[in-house]
Amino acid sequence: MRIGELSRETGVAVPTIKYYVREKLLPAGWLTSPNQASYDDTHVRRLRLIRGLMDVGGLSVSAVREVLAAVDSPGPVHEVLGAAQDAITPPVTARPAGLEEARRAVLELLRRRGWCIEPAHPSVEAIAVALAAFRGFGHGEFEEVLDAYAEACERIAVADLAFVGRHAEVDGIVESVVIGTVLGDAVLTAMRRLAHMDASARRYGEEGREAGEGAREVSGGPDTPS
Amino acid sequence: MRIGELSRETGVAVPTIKYYVREKLLPAGWLTSPNQASYDDTHVRRLRLIRGLMDVGGLSVSAVREVLAAVDSPGPVHEVLGAAQDAITPPVTARPAGLEEARRAVLELLRRRGWCIEPAHPSVEAIAVALAAFRGFGHGEFEEVLDAYAEACERIAVADLAFVGRHAEVDGIVESVVIGTVLGDAVLTAMRRLAHMDASARRYGEEGREAGEGAREVSGGPDTPS
Repeated sequence: MRIGELSRETGVAVPTIKYYVREKLLPAGWLTSPNQASYDDTHVRRLRLIRGLMDVGGLSVSAVREVLAAVDSPGPVHEVLGAAQDAITPPVTARPAGLEEARRAVLELLRRRGWCIEPAHPSVEAIAVALAAFRGFGHGEFEEVLDAYAEACERIAVADLAFVGRHAEVDGIVESVVIGTVLGDAVLTAMRRLAHMDASARRYGEEGREAGEGAREVSGGPDTPS
Repeated sequence: MRIGELSRETGVAVPTIKYYVREKLLPAGWLTSPNQASYDDTHVRRLRLIRGLMDVGGLSVSAVREVLAAVDSPGPVHEVLGAAQDAITPPVTARPAGLEEARRAVLELLRRRGWCIEPAHPSVEAIAVALAAFRGFGHGEFEEVLDAYAEACERIAVADLAFVGRHAEVDGIVESVVIGTVLGDAVLTAMRRLAHMDASARRYGEEGREAGEGAREVSGGPDTPS
């Protein structure tokens, strides 16, 4: 197909497609004449992946480039997944006080749950930084919540892997995982917000009248004045 | 305490503290002489909150300002939580094809699970956008995974609310929720990465030898040549 058709098929404007080709996110089309190129379904698929990473995942052009490099790299699935994850996840650079102790707590959690994880994995560091920050706020008791998070993530990973497992070939697996990781992050954080709102409506909707001044009921019980 | 002591206590440089005061993130100190101000524990606490939102949550100065405005606003807990959530969560502006259908699927999920949620909640839209994007990739079957995510989030919300519930007064509750939402996002996405790596090591570590060329074992079983 020509670039105009590729644009219609994906909803991405022609100048943007050209920009992605220049930025090496999208392979150039095959030249069919000195100034005309042809594109195929692999371009459609790749464009959708790029837009998903940017629009839903909020990734920058350079982050997308890294993710695509991981997706395109040959190698065993498990290693490609690791590289794609690293590319998706911005490194945490904060160094709050108590980081060393928090890191030990995270490794202890992983040991307790029998997770097979490289101790130097960037996500171990990310959790340790957040945990140390929690403690800095005097909210050290969050550590007790970690096990609940870990258990929930074990269930999520089982569902995610079942989803990914439907794609038999390595290309499909890695692309699924990248999409699933980025879009799944968006779904999971939004879903957690909704679960909070639901739990908060049940818990504080009633109490609102005591806590606030002149507050209107959010989820009124039977004794709410009408 | 003087500004130098505030800086030592929180690890935030004096010019940065002054910048936060100018940007109205941090209340000015009390003037004790024409060119000397005094700060107290509320400043220490607020500075830690600002740094947590920025360093761990990756929030911008203007996003932090909005979150703090929500934290400081009087009102019933449930409404303040909603305002703080809105401030923390960047709005999703993407409009992928099939958004309307995806939105219906999300509302149907909420109805099925009995969640008490305003249909216009931004997180409903965020999930719908991600779901429509999944479908655009030909990964529509992700919808089946949504229930697993929702169930996991119900467990997480119970743990989160129990954590928050330890703070009796409204100020403490809202601050806890803000910290818990932002730092909790960081913990949850990182934890999901680790759960994926663990599940992937178990599932694809062995298959790596088939899928990749000359691959080394990531998690060798008993039959791995040594």
